[in-house]
Amino acid sequence: MASAGGRSVVAGSGYNRRMDLYQGTIRKRDRRAFLPQAIGAETLHRILQAGRMTPSSKNVEPNRFVVVDDAETRQQLAALSPIAGWLADAPVIIAIVQTQEHQFDAGRAAQSMMLAAYNEGIGSCPAHLPEERVAELLGIPGDLFPNRVIGFGAIDPARDRPPRAVARKRLPMEDLVHTNHW
Amino acid sequence: MASAGGRSVVAGSGYNRRMDLYQGTIRKRDRRAFLPQAIGAETLHRILQAGRMTPSSKNVEPNRFVVVDDAETRQQLAALSPIAGWLADAPVIIAIVQTQEHQFDAGRAAQSMMLAAYNEGIGSCPAHLPEERVAELLGIPGDLFPNRVIGFGAIDPARDRPPRAVARKRLPMEDLVHTNHW
Repeated sequence: MASAGGRSVVAGSGYNRRMDLYQGTIRKRDRRAFLPQAIGAETLHRILQAGRMTPSSKNVEPNRFVVVDDAETRQQLAALSPIAGWLADAPVIIAIVQTQEHQFDAGRAAQSMMLAAYNEGIGSCPAHLPEERVAELLGIPGDLFPNRVIGFGAIDPARDRPPRAVARKRLPMEDLVHTNHW
Repeated sequence: MASAGGRSVVAGSGYNRRMDLYQGTIRKRDRRAFLPQAIGAETLHRILQAGRMTPSSKNVEPNRFVVVDDAETRQQLAALSPIAGWLADAPVIIAIVQTQEHQFDAGRAAQSMMLAAYNEGIGSCPAHLPEERVAELLGIPGDLFPNRVIGFGAIDPARDRPPRAVARKRLPMEDLVHTNHW
Protein backbone atom coordinates (compact mmCIF):
# COMPACT_ATOMS: atom_id res chain seq x y z
CA MET A 1 0.00 0.00 0.00
CA ALA A 2 1.48 3.32 -1.05
CA SER A 3 1.76 6.29 1.22
CA ALA A 4 0.52 9.68 0.08
CA GLY A 5 1.03 12.76 2.19
CA GLY A 6 1.99 10.64 5.17
CA ARG A 7 -1.26 8.70 5.17
CA SER A 8 -1.73 5.24 3.80
CA VAL A 9 -4.46 5.39 1.24
CA VAL A 10 -6.03 2.99 -1.17
CA ALA A 11 -7.60 4.15 -4.40
CA GLY A 12 -10.68 2.73 -5.94
CA SER A 13 -12.88 2.05 -2.97
CA GLY A 14 -15.43 4.24 -4.72
CA TYR A 15 -17.39 1.57 -6.50
CA ASN A 16 -20.55 3.36 -5.48
CA ARG A 17 -19.60 6.09 -7.95
CA ARG A 18 -21.45 3.97 -10.57
CA MET A 19 -20.99 5.69 -13.86
CA ASP A 20 -23.46 5.11 -16.65
CA LEU A 21 -22.14 2.68 -19.25
CA TYR A 22 -22.52 5.03 -22.21
CA GLN A 23 -21.06 8.01 -20.34
CA GLY A 24 -18.09 5.84 -19.45
CA THR A 25 -17.40 4.91 -23.04
CA ILE A 26 -17.39 8.52 -24.25
CA ARG A 27 -15.60 10.11 -21.28
CA LYS A 28 -12.77 7.65 -20.73
CA ARG A 29 -9.54 9.27 -21.84
CA ASP A 30 -6.17 7.57 -21.72
CA ARG A 31 -4.27 9.01 -18.76
CA ARG A 32 -0.60 8.69 -17.85
CA ALA A 33 -0.52 10.73 -14.61
CA PHE A 34 -1.60 9.03 -11.42
CA LEU A 35 -1.77 9.53 -7.69
CA PRO A 36 0.75 7.28 -5.93
CA GLN A 37 -1.80 5.47 -3.80
CA ALA A 38 -2.25 1.72 -4.22
CA ILE A 39 -5.26 0.27 -5.98
CA GLY A 40 -7.58 -1.60 -3.64
CA ALA A 41 -7.85 -5.37 -3.95
CA GLU A 42 -11.57 -5.32 -4.72
CA THR A 43 -11.11 -2.71 -7.42
CA LEU A 44 -8.28 -4.69 -8.94
CA HIS A 45 -10.46 -7.78 -8.87
CA ARG A 46 -13.20 -5.96 -10.76
CA ILE A 47 -10.71 -4.73 -13.37
CA LEU A 48 -9.50 -8.29 -13.93
CA GLN A 49 -13.04 -9.61 -13.92
CA ALA A 50 -13.91 -7.17 -16.70
CA GLY A 51 -11.01 -8.59 -18.71
CA ARG A 52 -11.97 -12.15 -17.93
CA MET A 53 -15.61 -11.71 -18.96
CA THR A 54 -14.90 -9.90 -22.23
CA PRO A 55 -16.01 -12.13 -25.10
CA SER A 56 -13.40 -13.48 -27.49
CA SER A 57 -13.40 -14.72 -31.05
CA LYS A 58 -14.59 -18.34 -31.18
CA ASN A 59 -14.65 -18.18 -27.38
CA VAL A 60 -10.95 -19.05 -27.32
CA GLU A 61 -10.30 -16.91 -24.21
CA PRO A 62 -6.75 -16.10 -25.32
CA ASN A 63 -5.98 -13.44 -22.70
CA ARG A 64 -3.90 -13.92 -19.56
CA PHE A 65 -2.98 -11.13 -17.17
CA VAL A 66 0.21 -10.48 -15.25
CA VAL A 67 -0.48 -7.98 -12.47
CA VAL A 68 2.69 -6.05 -11.62
CA ASP A 69 2.64 -4.00 -8.43
CA ASP A 70 6.24 -4.56 -7.40
CA ALA A 71 8.03 -1.21 -7.69
CA GLU A 72 11.25 -2.59 -9.10
CA THR A 73 9.49 -4.58 -11.80
CA ARG A 74 7.37 -1.58 -12.71
CA GLN A 75 10.50 0.50 -13.11
CA GLN A 76 12.07 -2.18 -15.26
CA LEU A 77 9.00 -2.28 -17.50
CA ALA A 78 9.01 1.51 -17.75
CA ALA A 79 12.65 1.39 -18.84
CA LEU A 80 11.86 -0.82 -21.84
CA SER A 81 10.81 2.12 -23.99
CA PRO A 82 11.95 5.75 -24.10
CA ILE A 83 8.32 6.89 -24.07
CA ALA A 84 7.11 4.58 -21.30
CA GLY A 85 8.69 6.32 -18.31
CA TRP A 86 5.24 7.22 -17.00
CA LEU A 87 4.61 3.52 -16.33
CA ALA A 88 6.96 3.62 -13.34
CA ASP A 89 4.44 5.85 -11.58
CA ALA A 90 1.46 3.59 -12.28
CA PRO A 91 0.79 1.74 -9.01
CA VAL A 92 -0.38 -1.28 -10.99
CA ILE A 93 0.64 -2.44 -14.44
CA ILE A 94 -1.27 -5.28 -16.05
CA ALA A 95 0.44 -7.11 -18.89
CA ILE A 96 -1.88 -8.82 -21.34
CA VAL A 97 -0.33 -12.05 -22.54
CA GLN A 98 -2.06 -14.23 -25.11
CA THR A 99 -2.12 -17.98 -25.65
CA GLN A 100 -2.99 -17.25 -29.29
CA GLU A 101 -2.11 -13.94 -30.89
CA HIS A 102 -5.30 -11.94 -31.44
CA GLN A 103 -4.79 -8.20 -31.30
CA PHE A 104 -8.47 -7.38 -31.74
CA ASP A 105 -9.47 -9.50 -28.75
CA ALA A 106 -6.66 -7.98 -26.69
CA GLY A 107 -8.05 -4.57 -27.52
CA ARG A 108 -11.57 -5.58 -26.49
CA ALA A 109 -10.42 -6.91 -23.12
CA ALA A 110 -8.14 -3.94 -22.55
CA GLN A 111 -10.98 -1.51 -23.19
CA SER A 112 -13.29 -3.38 -20.81
CA MET A 113 -10.64 -3.36 -18.08
CA MET A 114 -9.92 0.32 -18.54
CA LEU A 115 -13.62 1.17 -18.43
CA ALA A 116 -14.18 -0.89 -15.28
CA ALA A 117 -11.24 0.97 -13.74
CA TYR A 118 -12.59 4.33 -14.85
CA ASN A 119 -15.85 3.52 -13.07
CA GLU A 120 -13.90 3.84 -9.81
CA GLY A 121 -11.77 6.87 -10.57
CA ILE A 122 -8.83 4.85 -11.83
CA GLY A 123 -7.12 6.19 -14.94
CA SER A 124 -5.21 4.04 -17.39
CA CYS A 125 -3.27 3.92 -20.63
CA PRO A 126 -1.97 1.03 -22.72
CA ALA A 127 1.62 0.83 -23.93
CA HIS A 128 3.24 -1.39 -26.52
CA LEU A 129 6.63 -2.46 -25.17
CA PRO A 130 9.16 -4.66 -26.96
CA GLU A 131 7.53 -8.05 -26.63
CA GLU A 132 10.66 -10.15 -26.16
CA ARG A 133 11.89 -7.87 -23.41
CA VAL A 134 8.53 -8.05 -21.62
CA ALA A 135 8.59 -11.83 -21.90
CA GLU A 136 12.10 -11.96 -20.49
CA LEU A 137 11.37 -9.60 -17.62
CA LEU A 138 8.12 -11.28 -16.55
CA GLY A 139 9.18 -14.85 -17.26
CA ILE A 140 6.54 -15.41 -19.93
CA PRO A 141 6.85 -18.90 -21.48
CA GLY A 142 8.10 -18.88 -25.07
CA ASP A 143 4.88 -20.20 -26.57
CA LEU A 144 2.84 -17.22 -25.35
CA PHE A 145 2.44 -13.76 -26.86
CA PRO A 146 2.93 -10.62 -24.76
CA ASN A 147 0.55 -8.03 -26.14
CA ARG A 148 0.17 -4.69 -24.35
CA VAL A 149 0.82 -3.50 -20.85
CA ILE A 150 -1.67 -1.15 -19.24
CA GLY A 151 -0.74 1.25 -16.48
CA PHE A 152 -3.45 1.89 -13.88
CA GLY A 153 -3.65 4.45 -11.10
CA ALA A 154 -6.00 6.83 -9.35
CA ILE A 155 -6.71 9.89 -11.45
CA ASP A 156 -4.89 12.93 -10.12
CA PRO A 157 -7.40 15.80 -10.28
CA ALA A 158 -4.57 18.33 -10.27
CA ARG A 159 -3.05 16.82 -13.40
CA ASP A 160 -6.20 15.75 -15.17
CA ARG A 161 -6.16 18.27 -18.00
CA PRO A 162 -5.58 16.54 -21.31
CA PRO A 163 -2.09 17.07 -22.75
CA ARG A 164 -2.07 19.65 -25.51
CA ALA A 165 -1.61 16.99 -28.19
CA VAL A 166 -4.98 15.44 -27.45
CA ALA A 167 -6.80 18.52 -26.21
CA ARG A 168 -8.18 19.06 -29.69
CA LYS A 169 -11.54 17.59 -30.42
CA ARG A 170 -11.89 14.25 -32.08
CA LEU A 171 -12.49 14.21 -35.81
CA PRO A 172 -16.07 15.26 -36.49
CA MET A 173 -18.64 12.52 -36.78
CA GLU A 174 -19.34 13.33 -40.41
CA ASP A 175 -15.72 12.61 -41.32
CA LEU A 176 -15.91 9.20 -39.68
CA VAL A 177 -19.27 7.78 -40.69
CA HIS A 178 -20.59 6.57 -44.04
CA THR A 179 -23.97 4.98 -44.64
CA ASN A 180 -24.42 1.78 -46.64
CA HIS A 181 -21.53 2.61 -48.96
CA TRP A 182 -18.27 4.50 -48.64
CA MET B 1 -38.23 1.17 -39.71
CA ALA B 2 -38.93 -2.54 -39.34
CA SER B 3 -42.29 -3.98 -38.48
CA ALA B 4 -42.67 -6.52 -35.69
CA GLY B 5 -46.01 -8.14 -35.02
CA GLY B 6 -47.75 -5.64 -37.25
CA ARG B 7 -46.53 -2.62 -35.31
CA SER B 8 -43.69 -0.38 -36.32
CA VAL B 9 -41.23 -0.34 -33.48
CA VAL B 10 -37.84 1.13 -32.90
CA ALA B 11 -35.37 -0.47 -30.53
CA GLY B 12 -33.05 1.37 -28.27
CA SER B 13 -35.15 4.24 -27.03
CA GLY B 14 -34.37 2.91 -23.56
CA TYR B 15 -31.39 5.07 -22.75
CA ASN B 16 -32.83 5.58 -19.29
CA ARG B 17 -31.97 1.95 -18.59
CA ARG B 18 -28.54 3.27 -17.53
CA MET B 19 -26.46 0.29 -16.67
CA ASP B 20 -23.50 0.62 -14.35
CA LEU B 21 -20.20 0.72 -16.25
CA TYR B 22 -18.66 -2.24 -14.44
CA GLN B 23 -21.78 -4.36 -14.67
CA GLY B 24 -21.87 -3.66 -18.37
CA THR B 25 -18.33 -4.89 -18.89
CA ILE B 26 -18.92 -8.18 -17.12
CA ARG B 27 -22.44 -8.89 -18.40
CA LYS B 28 -22.05 -8.07 -22.07
CA ARG B 29 -22.11 -11.30 -24.05
CA ASP B 30 -21.77 -11.49 -27.79
CA ARG B 31 -25.22 -12.16 -29.25
CA ARG B 32 -26.20 -13.19 -32.75
CA ALA B 33 -30.01 -13.35 -32.37
CA PHE B 34 -31.94 -10.11 -32.62
CA LEU B 35 -35.44 -8.76 -32.78
CA PRO B 36 -36.19 -7.40 -36.27
CA GLN B 37 -37.01 -3.90 -35.12
CA ALA B 38 -34.88 -1.00 -36.36
CA ILE B 39 -32.38 0.73 -34.10
CA GLY B 40 -33.38 4.28 -33.23
CA ALA B 41 -31.35 7.14 -34.63
CA GLU B 42 -30.33 8.47 -31.23
CA THR B 43 -29.20 5.06 -30.06
CA LEU B 44 -27.20 4.60 -33.25
CA HIS B 45 -25.64 8.00 -32.72
CA ARG B 46 -24.55 7.02 -29.21
CA ILE B 47 -23.06 3.76 -30.48
CA LEU B 48 -21.04 5.68 -33.07
CA GLN B 49 -20.10 8.33 -30.54
CA ALA B 50 -18.69 5.61 -28.29
CA GLY B 51 -16.53 4.45 -31.20
CA ARG B 52 -15.50 7.99 -32.06
CA MET B 53 -14.45 8.85 -28.51
CA THR B 54 -12.46 5.67 -27.85
CA PRO B 55 -8.80 6.61 -27.45
CA SER B 56 -6.31 5.37 -30.02
CA SER B 57 -2.60 4.71 -30.08
CA LYS B 58 -0.69 7.99 -30.63
CA ASN B 59 -4.12 9.59 -31.04
CA VAL B 60 -4.11 8.58 -34.72
CA GLU B 61 -7.90 8.04 -34.77
CA PRO B 62 -7.63 5.29 -37.39
CA ASN B 63 -11.25 4.08 -37.24
CA ARG B 64 -13.98 4.88 -39.74
CA PHE B 65 -17.46 3.40 -39.64
CA VAL B 66 -19.75 2.29 -42.44
CA VAL B 67 -23.29 1.93 -41.11
CA VAL B 68 -25.22 -0.62 -43.15
CA ASP B 69 -28.97 -0.75 -42.66
CA ASP B 70 -29.97 -1.50 -46.22
CA ALA B 71 -31.41 -5.03 -46.26
CA GLU B 72 -29.82 -6.10 -49.52
CA THR B 73 -26.35 -4.97 -48.48
CA ARG B 74 -26.74 -6.69 -45.12
CA GLN B 75 -27.63 -9.92 -46.90
CA GLN B 76 -24.64 -9.55 -49.19
CA LEU B 77 -22.34 -9.07 -46.21
CA ALA B 78 -23.87 -12.09 -44.48
CA ALA B 79 -23.18 -14.16 -47.59
CA LEU B 80 -19.45 -13.45 -47.46
CA SER B 81 -18.80 -16.17 -44.90
CA PRO B 82 -20.48 -19.53 -44.26
CA ILE B 83 -20.70 -18.72 -40.55
CA ALA B 84 -21.97 -15.15 -40.91
CA GLY B 85 -25.55 -15.87 -41.95
CA TRP B 86 -26.82 -14.38 -38.70
CA LEU B 87 -25.64 -10.96 -39.90
CA ALA B 88 -28.54 -10.77 -42.34
CA ASP B 89 -30.90 -10.54 -39.36
CA ALA B 90 -28.96 -7.75 -37.65
CA PRO B 91 -30.93 -4.56 -38.35
CA VAL B 92 -27.69 -2.59 -38.40
CA ILE B 93 -24.20 -3.71 -39.33
CA ILE B 94 -21.30 -1.37 -38.69
CA ALA B 95 -18.11 -2.02 -40.62
CA ILE B 96 -14.96 -0.75 -38.98
CA VAL B 97 -12.55 0.48 -41.64
CA GLN B 98 -9.12 1.79 -40.71
CA THR B 99 -6.91 4.44 -42.25
CA GLN B 100 -3.94 2.66 -40.66
CA GLU B 101 -4.13 -0.99 -39.73
CA HIS B 102 -4.29 -1.31 -35.95
CA GLN B 103 -6.18 -4.35 -34.74
CA PHE B 104 -5.83 -3.48 -31.05
CA ASP B 105 -7.40 -0.06 -31.54
CA ALA B 106 -10.18 -1.59 -33.64
CA GLY B 107 -10.89 -3.94 -30.76
CA ARG B 108 -11.01 -1.08 -28.27
CA ALA B 109 -13.48 0.92 -30.34
CA ALA B 110 -15.55 -2.16 -31.10
CA GLN B 111 -15.86 -2.99 -27.43
CA SER B 112 -16.88 0.58 -26.56
CA MET B 113 -19.54 0.57 -29.27
CA MET B 114 -20.89 -2.79 -28.19
CA LEU B 115 -21.04 -1.69 -24.56
CA ALA B 116 -22.82 1.55 -25.43
CA ALA B 117 -25.32 -0.54 -27.41
CA TYR B 118 -25.75 -2.99 -24.56
CA ASN B 119 -26.64 -0.08 -22.30
CA GLU B 120 -29.84 0.25 -24.33
CA GLY B 121 -30.77 -3.39 -24.76
CA ILE B 122 -28.98 -3.76 -28.08
CA GLY B 123 -27.01 -6.97 -28.54
CA SER B 124 -24.04 -7.31 -30.85
CA CYS B 125 -21.31 -9.55 -32.14
CA PRO B 126 -18.25 -8.87 -34.28
CA ALA B 127 -17.42 -10.91 -37.38
CA HIS B 128 -14.27 -11.12 -39.42
CA LEU B 129 -15.27 -11.27 -43.10
CA PRO B 130 -12.90 -11.54 -46.07
CA GLU B 131 -11.49 -8.05 -46.19
CA GLU B 132 -11.22 -7.67 -49.96
CA ARG B 133 -14.82 -8.74 -50.42
CA VAL B 134 -16.00 -6.27 -47.79
CA ALA B 135 -14.01 -3.52 -49.48
CA GLU B 136 -15.51 -4.38 -52.86
CA LEU B 137 -19.07 -4.59 -51.56
CA LEU B 138 -18.94 -1.34 -49.59
CA GLY B 139 -16.77 0.59 -52.03
CA ILE B 140 -13.92 1.06 -49.57
CA PRO B 141 -10.96 2.89 -51.17
CA GLY B 142 -7.94 0.68 -51.76
CA ASP B 143 -5.70 2.51 -49.30
CA LEU B 144 -7.98 1.71 -46.33
CA PHE B 145 -8.19 -1.43 -44.22
CA PRO B 146 -11.54 -3.13 -43.56
CA ASN B 147 -11.29 -4.63 -40.08
CA ARG B 148 -14.39 -6.21 -38.52
CA VAL B 149 -18.08 -5.85 -39.07
CA ILE B 150 -20.35 -5.78 -36.03
CA GLY B 151 -23.99 -6.81 -36.16
CA PHE B 152 -26.31 -4.89 -33.85
CA GLY B 153 -29.94 -5.52 -32.93
CA ALA B 154 -32.36 -5.47 -30.03
CA ILE B 155 -31.84 -8.42 -27.73
CA ASP B 156 -34.59 -11.01 -28.17
CA PRO B 157 -35.53 -12.11 -24.64
CA ALA B 158 -36.97 -15.36 -26.00
CA ARG B 159 -33.65 -16.29 -27.58
CA ASP B 160 -31.30 -14.81 -25.03
CA ARG B 161 -29.96 -18.03 -23.53
CA PRO B 162 -26.30 -18.46 -24.38
CA PRO B 163 -25.59 -21.13 -26.99
CA ARG B 164 -24.36 -24.36 -25.47
CA ALA B 165 -20.81 -23.73 -26.67
CA VAL B 166 -20.43 -20.66 -24.51
CA ALA B 167 -22.79 -21.61 -21.70
CA ARG B 168 -19.84 -22.94 -19.74
CA LYS B 169 -18.20 -20.60 -17.34
CA ARG B 170 -15.16 -18.63 -18.30
CA LEU B 171 -11.79 -19.98 -17.26
CA PRO B 172 -11.35 -19.45 -13.52
CA MET B 173 -9.60 -16.29 -12.44
CA GLU B 174 -6.69 -18.22 -10.93
CA ASP B 175 -5.90 -19.73 -14.33
CA LEU B 176 -5.76 -16.30 -15.93
CA VAL B 177 -3.90 -14.12 -13.46
CA HIS B 178 -0.28 -14.08 -12.37
CA THR B 179 1.30 -11.59 -10.00
CA ASN B 180 4.58 -9.82 -10.74
CA HIS B 181 5.99 -12.81 -12.61
CA TRP B 182 4.53 -15.63 -14.68
